[in-house]
Amino acid sequence: MFSKSSAKYIQSLQHKKFRDDNGVFVAEGDKLVLEMLQSGVFEPKLIFGVEEWFNKHNDLLEKYHTIAAIVSTEELERISGMPSPNKVLGAFYKRSFDMPKNFSGVTLMLDDIRDPGNLGTIIRTADWFGVQHIICSETCVDMYNPKVVQGTMGSINRMKLYYADLNQVIDQHPNIPVCAAVLNGKSVKDMKVLPNCFLVIGNEANGISSALLEKVTYQVSIPGAGTAESLNAAIAAAILLYHFST
Amino acid sequence: MFSKSSAKYIQSLQHKKFRDDNGVFVAEGDKLVLEMLQSGVFEPKLIFGVEEWFNKHNDLLEKYHTIAAIVSTEELERISGMPSPNKVLGAFYKRSFDMPKNFSGVTLMLDDIRDPGNLGTIIRTADWFGVQHIICSETCVDMYNPKVVQGTMGSINRMKLYYADLNQVIDQHPNIPVCAAVLNGKSVKDMKVLPNCFLVIGNEANGISSALLEKVTYQVSIPGAGTAESLNAAIAAAILLYHFST
Repeated sequence: MFSKSSAKYIQSLQHKKFRDDNGVFVAEGDKLVLEMLQSGVFEPKLIFGVEEWFNKHNDLLEKYHTIAAIVSTEELERISGMPSPNKVLGAFYKRSFDMPKNFSGVTLMLDDIRDPGNLGTIIRTADWFGVQHIICSETCVDMYNPKVVQGTMGSINRMKLYYADLNQVIDQHPNIPVCAAVLNGKSVKDMKVLPNCFLVIGNEANGISSALLEKVTYQVSIPGAGTAESLNAAIAAAILLYHFST
Repeated sequence: MFSKSSAKYIQSLQHKKFRDDNGVFVAEGDKLVLEMLQSGVFEPKLIFGVEEWFNKHNDLLEKYHTIAAIVSTEELERISGMPSPNKVLGAFYKRSFDMPKNFSGVTLMLDDIRDPGNLGTIIRTADWFGVQHIICSETCVDMYNPKVVQGTMGSINRMKLYYADLNQVIDQHPNIPVCAAVLNGKSVKDMKVLPNCFLVIGNEANGISSALLEKVTYQVSIPGAGTAESLNAAIAAAILLYHFST
């Protein structure tokens, strides 16, 4: 079942255009693929694993016999997007979620987060803190980018992400206060915990867009004692989520 | 001055063995290289920039005329280790620091941090919170790995890192309490702030080594409300540093 054309197909999924055209994305590695198959959130389209992996998970090969195939380590290396491929790679069907009408708790809003590692880590951290929803601006990196998927360490199975115009979403929910991480705001240590809010994290280099900033109720900063110019976006998100977690 | 052999030399610095043999490492990009030259912490050995960059920083080309050369965008792409090279690349002499006899404030201890992105982000975050020293186990990734250097966003110029046997360092400072991030410890929210301590962050997959764990005074965890299995090591470090920053 593994052929030149399936290799080409998997490789093409490294690119957003092909993921969008096919509605499919890639997840890799023993732990992540197993978790994705077990959670059943994303339907698998193809599974390519080394013999050792299928021997260990015999039931999976049986269950997915029409879509699973054993590949050699060399073949896996050829189709993998990772520096050190790890036993198995799966192609899964993308899902999209309808934006909920109501939000409760802290809802993360990501304004133009471009780095896939950052988005993956933010999804994982939000999952840790029990965030229910993440709303990404349309300019954020694709959540199905392989580096995002790997960085979530499985949290992609649990976290709901939406891509939308953040300004519009805020306008539609005038009663939800908007808190944003900025460089020269009020210290988060002096900030009361908001049980329900939109928490906005801005672009890695440029912060939050000015149109969005006008809609922000609370501009907060993480007090630093050192000389670094800024914090990484995922780090800032984590510290604010920690502060807001009760 | 830019030749095939200088291209080969720069490329070789992607590998630790060559960095160790030559005592040299690479930093890339307009902002970072400029900051490194201005801070003067690391002495430059070679600077390769595109014409536009040198035109903008004419004084630098003059000051470093024996070691600086204009390269084409294609040449820069050839020697760069980055997916999108950014105008300039510098090779700098490594430095090593003598381990201080005394520590004050929070001293970060990194036990077997392997991911260069994590180490870079931890250095940047520690700099933000005014940490003075980071002690890495000998098994940690090399601080001069290009991905570490880029991830520090310039904080490599300000943060002092040492590689040492963490068990020994702790033994030599019996009066400094040791606090470690673990998965099933006491909630950090209930933890008093320790103005002087060693704060240990463990390996991404395996946590803190058992020998080291025996020396830990306070095992703390970051309380989560969700279902993620763990937090990224750099995220855990950041939240604890935030908690300990007064």
